[in-house]
Order: sequence, then structure tokens, then C-alpha cells
Amino acid sequence: MPDTDVAALLPRLVAALPDGVVTTDPDVVEPYRWDWSHDVAAGTPLAVVRAQDAEQVQVAVRWAAEHGVPVVPRGAGSGLSGGSSAVDGGIVLSLERMRAIEIDTECRVAVVEPGALNVEVKTAAAEHGLWYPPDPSSYEICSIGGNVATNAGGLCCVKYGVTTDYVLGLDVVLADGRLVTLGGKRVKDVAGLSLLKLFVGSEGTLGVVTRAVLRLVPAQAARSTLVASFATVAGAATAVVAVGRTMRPSMMELMDQASINAVEDYKPMGLDRTAGALLVAQSDAPGVARAQEVEGMRAACEAAGAEVFVTDDPDEGELFVAARRMAFPAIQARGAVLLEDVGVPIPLLPELLARVAAIAAEHDVEIPVVAHAGDGNTHPIIVYTPEAEDRARAAFHAVMAAAIALGGTITGEHGVGRAKAAALPDQLGADVMELNRRVKAALDPRGILNPGALGL
Amino acid sequence: MPDTDVAALLPRLVAALPDGVVTTDPDVVEPYRWDWSHDVAAGTPLAVVRAQDAEQVQVAVRWAAEHGVPVVPRGAGSGLSGGSSAVDGGIVLSLERMRAIEIDTECRVAVVEPGALNVEVKTAAAEHGLWYPPDPSSYEICSIGGNVATNAGGLCCVKYGVTTDYVLGLDVVLADGRLVTLGGKRVKDVAGLSLLKLFVGSEGTLGVVTRAVLRLVPAQAARSTLVASFATVAGAATAVVAVGRTMRPSMMELMDQASINAVEDYKPMGLDRTAGALLVAQSDAPGVARAQEVEGMRAACEAAGAEVFVTDDPDEGELFVAARRMAFPAIQARGAVLLEDVGVPIPLLPELLARVAAIAAEHDVEIPVVAHAGDGNTHPIIVYTPEAEDRARAAFHAVMAAAIALGGTITGEHGVGRAKAAALPDQLGADVMELNRRVKAALDPRGILNPGALGL
Repeated sequence: MPDTDVAALLPRLVAALPDGVVTTDPDVVEPYRWDWSHDVAAGTPLAVVRAQDAEQVQVAVRWAAEHGVPVVPRGAGSGLSGGSSAVDGGIVLSLERMRAIEIDTECRVAVVEPGALNVEVKTAAAEHGLWYPPDPSSYEICSIGGNVATNAGGLCCVKYGVTTDYVLGLDVVLADGRLVTLGGKRVKDVAGLSLLKLFVGSEGTLGVVTRAVLRLVPAQAARSTLVASFATVAGAATAVVAVGRTMRPSMMELMDQASINAVEDYKPMGLDRTAGALLVAQSDAPGVARAQEVEGMRAACEAAGAEVFVTDDPDEGELFVAARRMAFPAIQARGAVLLEDVGVPIPLLPELLARVAAIAAEHDVEIPVVAHAGDGNTHPIIVYTPEAEDRARAAFHAVMAAAIALGGTITGEHGVGRAKAAALPDQLGADVMELNRRVKAALDPRGILNPGALGL
Repeated sequence: MPDTDVAALLPRLVAALPDGVVTTDPDVVEPYRWDWSHDVAAGTPLAVVRAQDAEQVQVAVRWAAEHGVPVVPRGAGSGLSGGSSAVDGGIVLSLERMRAIEIDTECRVAVVEPGALNVEVKTAAAEHGLWYPPDPSSYEICSIGGNVATNAGGLCCVKYGVTTDYVLGLDVVLADGRLVTLGGKRVKDVAGLSLLKLFVGSEGTLGVVTRAVLRLVPAQAARSTLVASFATVAGAATAVVAVGRTMRPSMMELMDQASINAVEDYKPMGLDRTAGALLVAQSDAPGVARAQEVEGMRAACEAAGAEVFVTDDPDEGELFVAARRMAFPAIQARGAVLLEDVGVPIPLLPELLARVAAIAAEHDVEIPVVAHAGDGNTHPIIVYTPEAEDRARAAFHAVMAAAIALGGTITGEHGVGRAKAAALPDQLGADVMELNRRVKAALDPRGILNPGALGL
């Protein structure tokens, strides 16, 4: 708990930082209370600190540590789990002004401040013929700091891995205001405990990232796109398992019938409304190997009963990927939503989706599903009207329980934040929760960093 | 420190485990005192516990926890940093008897006990057309448990990553004997702090791994091999940087003149003794893309002044890779050795190798070098005669200091163990060392797990 007179101490923080860094203007503060999950329990912070450099982050954290004030670190605010919901009496520490990006072509890394957007890193790398693969659907609006905080995934993870696979170094401001550097511009480094990997995905509960060294790879080769229309989700899942056994698609996305129709209602794209499920897959294998891989995927899909369309035209292919990316806004347009991020072992995808359908029926809510099917990571989206909120929340928890029962996870890439904190012990169990708490207490003994996130 | 009467308590442990699990016979115990680094400071354990299952591991750790007895977990004993040197008055907890391997083709994972050898996992996966990529040079004799403990690398890491990139789940016996399961058969999972990644590379200081769920990928495609002979190491490093900018070789190994000659002395392979450096590179790009990639590598090497030989014949290619793998035994045959594992940002490879040469001259020791050049990870090997041991140890520390001065690491893949523990604070600094200690204390408050490793 903050000292009771923290508000009275705020002028010290204001005076210690340049003009305009600390703001208490309620109109300015208001949008910093929420991320995209619109957490109804979000608090009202004392102030928003929009730091311009790591030293200002240290000043703010030192002040907070001295007075026991909660600090909620915040990137672009596009989080989907309430990981940056404001806390009453705390400060929001926004990194949005720290956006420098430096590409080191010799070391093949990007050195990036946390407020830089994912798309900005991709663009800067592309100018040198290099590529930063992680690609959350929100890549045009989400920040690298947020990506690191959640260990964000995306569409190309199925072949290229997630954020942690690309983080070679971090500068982190600790809970007492000290700044440490972990890792650096070296590809392999096993000196000491893997603290670098521990900070990735820690959702601001262990420290505040002020700089990241990100591995880049050569630019992605040209892609071909396959769209396969299945009578049932189970058929699509069968194809996903078959493809994964011998091929490495660079994308393997699934839309169920409800999400296909939501997109068609939102913006007609010519998708097959009668399909039980669509797979949108890509291959970026080099040269003629691409055509071979796509034909292999076609055969696997047809064997599972699909009608298949293939295009080598990048613009045409992008239309289908855009349709998949559009699913979230299209579904949001139908009402209030609760967005799931559950994952299961890949062969259990049909079973998970059958259970989601049963939960939708039982709770009388609509639950369209899109999925990074190649990774077994799905996004059931619970759509509800205001009077159905209780049923929707019950369905939200039932879907997480179903994933846990199938040996899965409540979150594959969005993070636990506050939205899923109550379900985390159900997945991890008491012993692993206790390990989480011990590590948290070791690195943030006063518990000032993002209290409540992850239930810590 | 163990209780003074621990030896008197040993019968309780013996009685709690099946016959033959605990041994105190000095002749049997003796070889369990060392790994391959032949740590002269290795202690003499009270007993060796060769557990047959996780429950026996729990029994042993609970007994040790109750009496404050040090526990040194041990896989195949092929470690190169003294990570499993025995401790006076402690027990060695060997996992060599826990070797079960189960391949789940639908989930595309291997579920493996820690004593299984890396090669056994590769072989079991290959029977299903699948591949476990991490390939330490010692893959025929090293265990998966040791690979996880050190976050082991290898030759194909340059394209396929290191052990941590393939660990989806772990069962771990904690310092108090509880068994926890982290992760599982799901590709993406961000629920809670990244404890899974924290345990990988923790060298037995945080827990004892009793089971690992390892990600598998489709079998590797056919490979072509390129051997490039350079007048200087700097020329070879220039080619490495150029190749990495646009290509993704599946191997990029370097041998310097001294290591080439050591191999030729040991077993004539027809390598060019006059070359300043050899690169042995491979491409496994699919189909005709492979020939394109190899030609691209050839052009980059020739532009850097090399003579280049290329073969698509797998047996001929394997001969060169075998020559590279032979470097370590060949150099060992020349005398006592101290094996380095230093890494730097890739463009600083020539500078590092120049400093290594200067250190060799200054300390009057021979230091041949082999390197996973594509990752900037090098193995200078200090060869010395008994009377030169002090000079060799001074050179060993000077090489680590040089790597640190160049923004590098004292260990890229072998681990810190006990051999490099004294140098770890020089790399990490006091603050990061303190973070290591805090995390260690949080998970092993009595400090019974592998005390001394990592300096913890």
C-alpha cells in the first residue's frame, strides 16, 4: 500500500523530472487507465510519467520505491489482458516517448527503445535487407516493450518462433531503481542464470525494460498462400497435424464458420460462408521448394476433405491474411467482447473447439474462433450484449478451464495480466504459483511493480 | 555446510531406496568426482545416488534438504566446465539410469528422461521422420539432462537455435524435494513468469530435471558442404559476416591454422596445413535453393579471398565435419588442455582471435582455435605441459577477459560450472551477480543444490 501522503510527495517527482514528463491532468491521465481489454476494475493513477530516457525511468522508480508507490509500466496500451490497467494511487510509467531504433547490420541486431512500435522495427530492418519476424496481429500499433513484456507471438511464429527467441539483450530498471544490462549483441551466452529470459514475459512485474537488443535475420523470401475450405473444424485440424509432420509453413491460421461470417458481415471479402473452417497457410521456402511445399500442403488439406485455392501473387495472398487479421475488429463490431488466448497440444485442437462450441451453447453467447492453428493457440472471442455480461464472464472462465483440462494454457501469447490472474493458479497449481511468488519477492520485495498483474 | 554427522545418517537414505541405488564403494564413486574438465579441486562425495525414477530423486533431495547435504546433479559427466564436480561431504545425484524416450508424433515432441543421450533422442525422432536439432560436438555421449542444464549449443545452432529453443516442458525436483511440472506439450505458453526458461541453463543450481518435453521438427533436408580456405582468420570472419547478412547456413564452423595442423598431426585428413583459417559451412535449403545458397556462400568466401571446395555428396561432406569435430580430441592429444568457450559479437571475431594469438605469445602457450563462427562462439584451447600450468591458467583468464572487453561472454554453450565461476562477476557486474544470488536464494534457500557452480 502506498503511504497515505503520497499525493503530497508527488511535487518532488515533478521537480526531479523535466517539464511535461509528469502529468496529473485528469483528461490526459484518463486514457492511460486502460489497455485494449477495457478492464472495468482499472484504477485511477496519481500521475502519468512519460519518460524520455532510461535515467528518467530510474528517477520515477526510485521515487516510487522510496514511498512504496505502485508503478504500472506501459507501452502502446494495446495489451489484451489488462496487464497495464492503472492502479489506484499508483503511477503509470509510459515508455511511449522512448522510440529510438538503431540497426547494426554487422551484428545483425536492432537496438530498440521500448516505445518503438513493432512495425517500426520491421521497417527499419527492412531498409537493410533484414527482418524482425515476430508479428502480432497488432504489429502496426503495439510496442516492442509490450511485446517483450508479454513474450508476444503472431502469425509467423509457427516457423519463426516468438519474441523471446529474438531477445539477445535487455536493459532493465529494477524495483529499486538500479539499471542492469542483461545479454547483449552476442548470439549465444549462457553466463549465469537465464535472467534475460526470465524478464521476457514478466509483464512488468520484475522490472522496466528500457532497451532491447533484438536478433534480426535475412529478409523473408517470397511467399505463396494457400486457402483451404473445410466442412468441419476437425477436418482442418487433421490437415494442420499432417502438414506439421513433414513441412514448415510460415503461417497456418484458422477461422471457424462464425468468424468467417463475422468478417463477411463486416466487410465482404468473398470468403465461403458455408465452410466449417478455413485454413490460411503460407510457405516461404526458397525457390522452387516453395511450390513443392505448397503442393504438399494442398495434398494434406485435400486428403482431409478440403477445397483448396493457391496463389503466388503476394497482393492476392495478403487479401486472405488481411481477412484473417480483420476477424478481431469484425467480431468487436458485433458487441462487447471477451478475448481468449487459450492453447492446447495441436492434436487436441478439434476437442478444444468442440468444447468451446458447447460452452457457447450452454451459456447462450456467440463464440467465434480464430487460431494460430499451427501452434495450437486459439482465440475464442466471446461476444455479448450488456445484459449477458454474467453469462459471458462465466463462458470466459469455462473456456480457460477447458484448455487446462486438455493439458493446455490459459494464454499462449497475450499474457495473464489482470484479466486471467484468477485462473492462473488453476493452470499452474499451488507449488508453481508459489515459485512465481518467490521469484517476484526476490526481485521486487516491496511489490511495487505492476501489482496485481499475474496475480502477483 | 552439512551436519557433522551426515555420514551417520546415510544409512537412512540407503534404506529408503532400492538396493544398488546408493553406493559408497570408493572405486565406484571415484569416476563420479569429475566431468571432462578434470577439475583438480573436485571433492570426494559421501555417496553416489543413481536414481531410477523421479520419486527416487525426490527421496534423495528430501534427505539432503533435511540434513543440509550438498547435492551435485549429474548427467553423462561430459560437461566441460566442472559443473558436476563432486563436493566434499555431498552426494552425487546421477540421472544416468533414467533414459526413457517417448516420441509423440501427433504433438511432434519427445518426452525424455534426463539420462537419455542426445544421440538417442535424435535416433528415436528420426525413426518417425522427425528431428531434434541441438547437436553439441559431444552429441554421441552427452545427456539431455546436461544439455538442459547448460543450455547446450552445437553446430546447427546458427540456423536452428540452442537447447532452450526446444524445451517446451520440464519436470523439476525442487530444493525441498517437491516435484513441479513447468510447461508441457504446447508450443506457446506465457502463463506466469518464464520459470521454464529460468531452469534451462541453471546448471543444477535451482532444481533437478527429471523429465523434459522437447520440440521436434521435420527431418532436416539434404545438405551441401562448402570448405573455404583463407589466408587469414580475418578473411574468414569477413566471409562469415557477409554470408549471415543474406543467407541462413545450417553450419558455419571455423578452424584456425593451429587447429588444422593439430588435426592433420592426429589423423591426416588432407586439410590445407598452410591455410590461415578454414570455414566448413553447410546449406540445407530445400530443393534447388540449396545450390543457390551454396553458390552465394562461395561468392562471399571468394570475395574475401578464399579458395572454395563444394560437395553435394553427404559422405564427403561428413568427412570435413568430422575433421572439425576431431579438433578437440586432436588437440587434447597434444598435452593438458584448458578449453575456452568465449563468444563475441560476430564482427569482432577477428579482433578476439588476434587477442587470443597475442595472449598465446605473451604466456608462451599454444592456443589453437575452433569456432562456431556463425554464432561468434569460439573455443580457444590452451595446450600446456605440466610445468606451464600457471602460465596456461593465466592465459585462460586472459582470454575470458579479452572476450568481456569486446562485449562478449565467457561461455556461449558449455556453462560456467566451477571452472569459470571466478570470472563470472567480471562479465555480469556486481548488480547482475546479486540478482543471480537473489534468485538462487529464492529457490534454494539452504544452498544445497550444486553449491559452487556459477559461484552460487
